[in-house]
Amino acid sequence: MKISGRHYRTIWRSEDGTVQVIDQSRLPFSFEIQPLDSVEAVAHAIRTMVVRGAPLIGATAAYGIALAMHREPSTPHLDAAIALLRATRPTAIDLAWALGRMRSALTVVEAPHRARMAWSLAAQISDDYVEQCRQIGAHGLELIEALATRRPTVNILTHCNAGWLCSVDWGTALSPIYMAHDAGLPVHVWVDETRPRNQGASLTAYELAAHGIPHTVIADNLGGHLMQRRRVDMVLVGSDRVTAAGDVCNKVGTYLKALAAHDTGIPFYAAMPMSTIDWSLQDGDEVPIEERSPGEVTHVTGLAPNGAIATVRVVPEGSPVLNLGFDVTPARLVTGLITERGIYAANRTALQELYDDRRSVNA
Amino acid sequence: MKISGRHYRTIWRSEDGTVQVIDQSRLPFSFEIQPLDSVEAVAHAIRTMVVRGAPLIGATAAYGIALAMHREPSTPHLDAAIALLRATRPTAIDLAWALGRMRSALTVVEAPHRARMAWSLAAQISDDYVEQCRQIGAHGLELIEALATRRPTVNILTHCNAGWLCSVDWGTALSPIYMAHDAGLPVHVWVDETRPRNQGASLTAYELAAHGIPHTVIADNLGGHLMQRRRVDMVLVGSDRVTAAGDVCNKVGTYLKALAAHDTGIPFYAAMPMSTIDWSLQDGDEVPIEERSPGEVTHVTGLAPNGAIATVRVVPEGSPVLNLGFDVTPARLVTGLITERGIYAANRTALQELYDDRRSVNA
Repeated sequence: MKISGRHYRTIWRSEDGTVQVIDQSRLPFSFEIQPLDSVEAVAHAIRTMVVRGAPLIGATAAYGIALAMHREPSTPHLDAAIALLRATRPTAIDLAWALGRMRSALTVVEAPHRARMAWSLAAQISDDYVEQCRQIGAHGLELIEALATRRPTVNILTHCNAGWLCSVDWGTALSPIYMAHDAGLPVHVWVDETRPRNQGASLTAYELAAHGIPHTVIADNLGGHLMQRRRVDMVLVGSDRVTAAGDVCNKVGTYLKALAAHDTGIPFYAAMPMSTIDWSLQDGDEVPIEERSPGEVTHVTGLAPNGAIATVRVVPEGSPVLNLGFDVTPARLVTGLITERGIYAANRTALQELYDDRRSVNA
Repeated sequence: MKISGRHYRTIWRSEDGTVQVIDQSRLPFSFEIQPLDSVEAVAHAIRTMVVRGAPLIGATAAYGIALAMHREPSTPHLDAAIALLRATRPTAIDLAWALGRMRSALTVVEAPHRARMAWSLAAQISDDYVEQCRQIGAHGLELIEALATRRPTVNILTHCNAGWLCSVDWGTALSPIYMAHDAGLPVHVWVDETRPRNQGASLTAYELAAHGIPHTVIADNLGGHLMQRRRVDMVLVGSDRVTAAGDVCNKVGTYLKALAAHDTGIPFYAAMPMSTIDWSLQDGDEVPIEERSPGEVTHVTGLAPNGAIATVRVVPEGSPVLNLGFDVTPARLVTGLITERGIYAANRTALQELYDDRRSVNA
């Protein structure tokens, strides 16, 4: 999508052979491109959330393998690179999926050909995400079009960042919103701040503003009240992992919004590429939940009055903190899953069709 | 309760004739006493949340009337002081209740006697809150005792600050927790950060730490997941206004926690003095919801690395913000209301008994 009128993706290979990413830990106050020149640099960028978002983590990991193969294409080095990257973020299935795809392709070719194939496949994975997100947008657009026939503005609440910054382009949950806005439909987005890392306030607000989409930032606590007062027409979020039963693992706090949507009769949709579905998981309780640094809760980073990026402590020194990054919304609270193949009910039977399709496509 | 071993109330009359309060806008990083010497200073302190919390706002407003009567005990001045204070915070019923009590008492005495009576009544209102909170603690303690028989530690989740800092002493929701801890019961408190003003992280964590009660600060988003994983035994919050039907108006985000408690079968209690019940309201939709400054969402205040209290911007300049302070939890989600008269079911029939009692007490 566009920033200051210029089109960007979130990741690309530069002519100097490095991988370039937008440093999302500096947004919204500073737009900086960061070059990554080794698999170690890629692992560090994923771990510190210079890049984040399930699809973008997948694409970045693929490029990390390409950098590793560029330096030394041996099988032990490939295995080490995969192990290093896999350990960066435990919850996002796309990471494991992208690494698995790289491994399958690279282990069957001779070492001297691996670097070229890895670069090519990483680019292909990026392009595939863009196309999947475009298709997710097209399917989700139909939901917004239907709502737009009955109200002057369609108010959509989203949590965390599932926009183009979380993917390579378009985004997952925000893709239908970009398409609706571009088609002239009146959309307005309630943007959950998304504590503790404030991805809503810092990333979703940033990219919606850059594209000119009307939006309002709210504390995570406010969404339930807005739904009670009928100021929300749809909840639309991304996902880091979906179980075979349709349970949706996403940024912590999503479950609370799904409960409020269910309680007030407002549709709750999650949008994700099919690769986000973990067919090996039958139950949301099996999803590993990432524990992150207490520092993300105890300290808040923002723009100081002097224009510098500064960090302040908001929790007293002596108070312990627990910081878990995700929660699981049970399928019974999910109205539907928006994928690149269409919109599916969040249950085992509906998803089985998608699973069978997937196998026929791969066969 | 105690700070560094010394007992404090949150408000008292000083020997120099001013009203002294703990400046809660400086906590947890700086403990400062602020003198208030006029009704205008009191109104400013309430508006800027130097003092906050439904009972403490009531007590502070009463002292504000005393300061006004001390300066000029005429009826027009009394009316002006009441109007000034009433406009400071629209949601908390205790404010209107305390002002009504002061007006009733003062209008029936001659002007020359009003200052003395106002000081006396303000002190009485403070003492009454302390006694009510003590009784709330005693009733709530029974719930914790019952839970403690079945588990090694009782994990209680609370939202915002309903501790002694929100009242004159003891607190409402935290009063049973202080009593349980003092009685040697193993309690642990999950403290919701409570965006946007972070009263949980800054005030609840501060007062629990000062009293030595085990606690963990969490992002508001995490409570639902902790309930799903059975790491919460009870949710216990305060309230700013309860309707005659048992709907609980409290700090925004409470409704989301009540939904999660209901969904996971965990008891959800609200604790408040009877004066918090607004018998004139039949439905939660009638509660006026205070809209506060967008700056509370766009900026976060905390401790800078150099030890100064500093403010950073966390929302980009161009993004609008909506900041509503409260929400209403429907009675159907409330397990019980803990009052100074005992624990009541949150419904019209149960509360009618309390209403009838109230009339017989006042008669």
